[in-house]
Amino acid sequence: MSENEVYPGQTVPRGFGQIPREEALGQSGLSLLKRMIAGEYPAPAMSQRMNFVLAEVGEGTCVFRGMPGERHLNPMGAVHGGWAATILDSALGCCVHSTLAQGEGYGTVEFKVNLIRPITPQTGEVEARGVVINRGRTIAVSEAKLVDRNGKVLAFGTETCAIYPIGK
Amino acid sequence: MSENEVYPGQTVPRGFGQIPREEALGQSGLSLLKRMIAGEYPAPAMSQRMNFVLAEVGEGTCVFRGMPGERHLNPMGAVHGGWAATILDSALGCCVHSTLAQGEGYGTVEFKVNLIRPITPQTGEVEARGVVINRGRTIAVSEAKLVDRNGKVLAFGTETCAIYPIGK
Amino acid sequence: MSENEVYPGQTVPRGFGQIPREEALGQSGLSLLKRMIAGEYPAPAMSQRMNFVLAEVGEGTCVFRGMPGERHLNPMGAVHGGWAATILDSALGCCVHSTLAQGEGYGTVEFKVNLIRPITPQTGEVEARGVVINRGRTIAVSEAKLVDRNGKVLAFGTETCAIYPIGK
Amino acid sequence: MSENEVYPGQTVPRGFGQIPREEALGQSGLSLLKRMIAGEYPAPAMSQRMNFVLAEVGEGTCVFRGMPGERHLNPMGAVHGGWAATILDSALGCCVHSTLAQGEGYGTVEFKVNLIRPITPQTGEVEARGVVINRGRTIAVSEAKLVDRNGKVLAFGTETCAIYPIGK
Repeated sequence: MSENEVYPGQTVPRGFGQIPREEALGQSGLSLLKRMIAGEYPAPAMSQRMNFVLAEVGEGTCVFRGMPGERHLNPMGAVHGGWAATILDSALGCCVHSTLAQGEGYGTVEFKVNLIRPITPQTGEVEARGVVINRGRTIAVSEAKLVDRNGKVLAFGTETCAIYPIGK
Repeated sequence: MSENEVYPGQTVPRGFGQIPREEALGQSGLSLLKRMIAGEYPAPAMSQRMNFVLAEVGEGTCVFRGMPGERHLNPMGAVHGGWAATILDSALGCCVHSTLAQGEGYGTVEFKVNLIRPITPQTGEVEARGVVINRGRTIAVSEAKLVDRNGKVLAFGTETCAIYPIGK
Repeated sequence: MSENEVYPGQTVPRGFGQIPREEALGQSGLSLLKRMIAGEYPAPAMSQRMNFVLAEVGEGTCVFRGMPGERHLNPMGAVHGGWAATILDSALGCCVHSTLAQGEGYGTVEFKVNLIRPITPQTGEVEARGVVINRGRTIAVSEAKLVDRNGKVLAFGTETCAIYPIGK
Repeated sequence: MSENEVYPGQTVPRGFGQIPREEALGQSGLSLLKRMIAGEYPAPAMSQRMNFVLAEVGEGTCVFRGMPGERHLNPMGAVHGGWAATILDSALGCCVHSTLAQGEGYGTVEFKVNLIRPITPQTGEVEARGVVINRGRTIAVSEAKLVDRNGKVLAFGTETCAIYPIGK
C-alpha cells in the first residue's frame, strides 16, 4: 500500500501529519477544512489508522468516507464499535468546526453513539454525514449518521462541543 | 516493532487475530476472557491499531491498558477522541462479556463518552476500568473510567448492551 | 382550572387516566395513538402534571404540545430540566410506539437530552417533534427536538427503545 | 393533603417557591443547599409536582428522596420515564451545585438516563444518589443512581454541567 493511501482508491495528496497551529489560527474553520480537502494540508494520522477521510464540508455540515477492514476487528470478528465511534466523532466535531470564525477553537465535551447494524469487512465503503443541530455562543450540538452504500443506517451519534476563543 | 508488540513493553503472546466461534460458544464469558489474558487466544486486530490490551478481568469488571501515540492524532495534534472512545467501549463491553453464561452472547446497543482531559502522546500509559452497573436478563448497563498514571480521569463512559442466546 | 384542562386553551375530552390493557393489545400502535388524539381514551396523568398533550401522530413521527409554567420551576426560577426531558421522552417513545404492529410492545431503554436554551414560564407554548431514526426488529432509535413558537431549538434528545412481543 | 406535604410522611417547612437571587449569589453552593435542607428556603415547585425532596448533601454528593404515584403514570399505567429523569437530573445537577464557590453558577448541558427496572405506584419511596465524577474549571461530569428500598437500581444517569461566573 502506498504511504499516501487511506484505502484502495482513496489517497491523500499530502500524506499524514498535523496542521500547523498558525494555519489554524489564521482563518475560519470552513476555510481550513476546505483547504484540507483540497490537499493543502496533510491528513491526520488517525485517518490512516482508521481508513477514513474528510470528503465534503459546508457551513455546519460534512461528510467523511471510510472503509472498515480486517485491521479493525474485535475479538469476535466484527468491526470494533470504536471504529464507528471514531468516524462519527470525526463527523460530529468537523461540522461544528466548519462554523468557527477565525479566532475560535472547539473541543468535544461528550458524544453518544448508537450501533444499529453490524459492520464487517464486507460492508464496503461507508459515509458519516454530520450536521449541526444548534450552534450557540459557547456550546454546539451536532448529530451524524453512518450509512452504507444502500443508505442503510449503520450507526448514529450526537455530540456536544465547547466553543472558546483561541489566542495567538 | 515486533509483530506481537502492542506498544513498548507490552506484547501479546499469540499475535493478533480472531477467536474461533466454537471457542466462544463452549465456555462462559469470564472463562474466555481469562484465557485471552493468559495468551491462549490471539489479541484482536483493533488492539494493534489502537495500542491497547485487556489486562485484567473479574466477574463484572475489567481493566484495559493502552498507550496513545503519534499514530492516533487528530488534525490539531491531540489524540483523537475516537481513541478514548475505542478503549472505553472495549472496557464497557468486556465487563458485560465477563457476566455471560455459556450460550449467551452480547452486542453493544449504545455508549456515551465524556472527554474530560486532553490526551497527548506524552500522556503515557493509561487504564480503562470497566464495571457493570446492572446486569438484567436481556439488557446490561456498564460504566468505565479512563485514568492516567496519577489516577486523573481522562474520559468517562457508560454503555448499554443487549444480551441474547447464541446457538450452536 | 377545569379538571379536563391541560393548560389554558388545551383540554382533553376524556380527562386523565389509563388505557385498558385489552385496548393496547387489540390494535396497532398507530391506531391506538390516533384514537387517543381523537379523544377515545383518557390522557395520561403525567400529562396533567406536566401540561402537555399528544397533538399529532404519523407512521414513525409525532408532535407533543405543552406549556411550561410556574409549577415546573427549579429552585433558581427556571423551568426544571426534567420538564424538557419528560416531554422529549414522551415524543421519543411515542414515535416508536407508532411503528408497533398489533401484538408488539415497547419500553424505553435509555435517552439523552441536550438542554440548549433556557425555558421559563414566559416561553409560552412549545412543540416536541419526534421521529424514528431506525426501527429494527428488537431495537428502535429515535430523536426529538423541542422548539418554541419561533422554531428555536430549546432541547434535543435521542432514545433507544426495546421492542418485544406482548401476550394476550 | 397539606400544602407543605410532598408525599405522606414528607413535608417541607417553608412550602414551595424560589430562592432569592441574592441568597444564591452570597454563599457557596454547599452552604445554600445545606440551608435548603434545614428549611431556611422554600422547596422548588417541581418538587411538589414530582413528589421528591433534597434529603442530604455533601461536597460533591447528594441524595434526593421521592415517592412516585398515580399522578405520574404514562398511558400504559407505569410511572413515566420522565419521573426518573427528573429526580435523576435533580441529583446530577445538585451534586455539581455543591462544589460551586461563591460567585459561581452552573447549568445542565446534557444528561443521559438508563431506565433499568419498571417503576410503579407500588415501588414506594426511592433514593437518587448523585456523585461528581470530575469537577473541571468550566465543565463538571456527574452520575446518579435511582434505587428502591432494597437497593435495587431502578435507573442510572450521567450529566454534563457548565460552570460559569455569576455577577452581582
